[in-house]
Amino acid sequence: MPDEVLNDISHRRYNPLTGSWLLVSPHRTKRPWQGAQETPSKNTLPSYDPKCYLCPGNKRAQGDSNPPYENTFAFVNDYSAVKETQQDYHPETNKDNVASLLLQARPVTGRCYVLTFSAKHDATLADMTPEEIVPVINTWTRIYASHLSPSHPLNGQAAYVLSTIPENPDGEVTPPKHQLKNMQIFENKGAAMGCSNPHPHCQIWTTSTLPEEPGKELVNMRKYKSDTGRHLLGDYVKLELEKKERLVWENGSFVVVCPWWALWPFEVLIISKRHVRALVDLDDKERLEFAQAVQEVARRYDNLFETNFPYSSGIHQAPLDCTEEEAETSWFHMHFYPPLLRSATVKKFLVGYELMAEPQRDITPEQAAAKLRDCGGELYRKSLQ
Amino acid sequence: MPDEVLNDISHRRYNPLTGSWLLVSPHRTKRPWQGAQETPSKNTLPSYDPKCYLCPGNKRAQGDSNPPYENTFAFVNDYSAVKETQQDYHPETNKDNVASLLLQARPVTGRCYVLTFSAKHDATLADMTPEEIVPVINTWTRIYASHLSPSHPLNGQAAYVLSTIPENPDGEVTPPKHQLKNMQIFENKGAAMGCSNPHPHCQIWTTSTLPEEPGKELVNMRKYKSDTGRHLLGDYVKLELEKKERLVWENGSFVVVCPWWALWPFEVLIISKRHVRALVDLDDKERLEFAQAVQEVARRYDNLFETNFPYSSGIHQAPLDCTEEEAETSWFHMHFYPPLLRSATVKKFLVGYELMAEPQRDITPEQAAAKLRDCGGELYRKSLQ
Ligand SMILES: O=P(O)(O)O[C@H]1O[C@H](CO)[C@@H](O)[C@H](O)[C@H]1O
Ligand SMILES: O=P(O)(O)O[C@H]1O[C@H](CO)[C@@H](O)[C@H](O)[C@H]1O
Repeated sequence: MPDEVLNDISHRRYNPLTGSWLLVSPHRTKRPWQGAQETPSKNTLPSYDPKCYLCPGNKRAQGDSNPPYENTFAFVNDYSAVKETQQDYHPETNKDNVASLLLQARPVTGRCYVLTFSAKHDATLADMTPEEIVPVINTWTRIYASHLSPSHPLNGQAAYVLSTIPENPDGEVTPPKHQLKNMQIFENKGAAMGCSNPHPHCQIWTTSTLPEEPGKELVNMRKYKSDTGRHLLGDYVKLELEKKERLVWENGSFVVVCPWWALWPFEVLIISKRHVRALVDLDDKERLEFAQAVQEVARRYDNLFETNFPYSSGIHQAPLDCTEEEAETSWFHMHFYPPLLRSATVKKFLVGYELMAEPQRDITPEQAAAKLRDCGGELYRKSLQ
Repeated sequence: MPDEVLNDISHRRYNPLTGSWLLVSPHRTKRPWQGAQETPSKNTLPSYDPKCYLCPGNKRAQGDSNPPYENTFAFVNDYSAVKETQQDYHPETNKDNVASLLLQARPVTGRCYVLTFSAKHDATLADMTPEEIVPVINTWTRIYASHLSPSHPLNGQAAYVLSTIPENPDGEVTPPKHQLKNMQIFENKGAAMGCSNPHPHCQIWTTSTLPEEPGKELVNMRKYKSDTGRHLLGDYVKLELEKKERLVWENGSFVVVCPWWALWPFEVLIISKRHVRALVDLDDKERLEFAQAVQEVARRYDNLFETNFPYSSGIHQAPLDCTEEEAETSWFHMHFYPPLLRSATVKKFLVGYELMAEPQRDITPEQAAAKLRDCGGELYRKSLQ
């Protein structure tokens, strides 16, 4: 343990990636708990659902039909949050005008994709093998590569990767009409995380602006680098491999940890061991090892409470349009934010105090990591089928 | 409308209180929606529940019994997130050590209260009259006053208020053992907001540290003041009263607006019209007018989808221990963050993109304000009873 006392007392921990603090109340887990004993949940979905708008061959809401794809299939979201073309908007920026200080708006354009992980309606990343997850990572990589700005410092890598990863006609996308700034790959899994279709898929939102979270991370990583001459996440990986207290799993290229500053009860971070700036930096072997790490997280999550574990996950990497220095500052990682706290139905609510004052968690990241270390092995529901 | 075009195009808006941006996608409301038509929900709770740990006279988890209180009743949470006394912890702060940069922790002490709003198990702020809400506000004010530091710039006000607001034996609390820094009053209402007991109540967490959110607001309000010589929220209230586009309701002392930067679909902000630094600055008439504003929000929320509307709310005001300048910078306001989007059951999920990249909303604050302006009048369920 970092300091035994942190198992018992209320304390704040610092998140160096976002530059903010959160409250940890370990003694709160001592609250009486009529531990809901769930029955392990089986997978009762069909492997093809004629009503699913993501299954191969089916029709979507706006009339398009999906191809009879085999693993991944990418398309522009029929109800995108941002669009490539829209009416112009030029906000006035008169510094002396109160409205221009307090009612600020800026236009945002972009393109939003949906990407399936598998043709099977009832598969999840936990059910898939690392080899089956590789095509997903390949598609992410090709899409990222095809959106980089013409002057991007990673263009050499991108060209190389595009020449080495086999094309997948159903996973290809056309380059954007205007250069975009950022690509956010994320998955919402489970109804608890606002996901309305269990067919395994993620979303990719590309935007003309750098969003808040990756923006904050870049600022903090850059500051760390200029203060110490080293990479924040590079130092952090070394530290966690040394301490082992928050380490869940590792392979040659990646570590899986419950970060020191984890907010969600079983939050984890996959971090590359070497300095990887973006997906295009990963070689064949590393993409397989990344798939292993993702699979390991998804399977351990499901095993933890013997249920289909909900989460939101997302990849942070170099922006699509950035300077040499910004690319150099970026360090590839993937966040998983799962809401479950004590069972398949008892979740942590980030509400009143968390929203109005400061995020708060109960079990410590060290306790969470210990539980996740203990639930490797075969996917629990394999033996139920 | 601010600029008609903002009704149609994706854009970012700036939150000057927190210094961050959010994404607005108004066209997303054009998604097909098999508008869930709910039946208006009645209140089916008893007005006294023998099993409720908050009802007058009942026993609590750790054995204490509640007094036969009449309106508000305050007690220290049996499972507080922070405690007044705990083991010491002195983190090392060796600047050259990677662990002291990346594994930072600080001790936090404090006291957490639970405060009931009414003796009636089935009352909500929407069911209560402003006159019935005044005792709640009086108790908040007395508790705040009794926690101020000995050198606090608002001590004169506090002494005055303690001499004018009648004591309520069930709502009084003892001063803290050590001086604390901040008091966060908040309510989690409804199961959707993690509330496990419908008996109307709020929580009050006092801490030895200034939490992230009020901390950010103070920084941004101070900066605005030093840049312009005026108060951020003072200017904002004037602007909203002039524009009227986001105004929901007002009385002599308070405005209710859907702020320009609202994140939650029907988020509102109650702001004092004059410069009120904290609860102790409010006079008798203003406390009644604040009760009216709170009641107005709660009732309009319930009327909107004819349901018991869930939300988290919280008050921001001067810290318990602060300088003259910090007190002077503070401007009393109350946030309401409600998750419902389109009906009693369709809520907005702040998940994948929101957590990994940037908060996103669909309907504009102007559209939300228009709907809330239209649903005043009698509480819908009065006529169902
Ligand atoms: O204190 P309660 O009501 O048990 O708990 C509720 O409010 C707290 C403060 O916002 C949260 O930390 C909890 O997650 C939530 O369930
Ligand atoms: O895009 P979907 O799956 O319809 O919607 C889901 O993910 C989005 C991105 O995180 C959120 O904005 C929505 O609130 C959520 O329900």
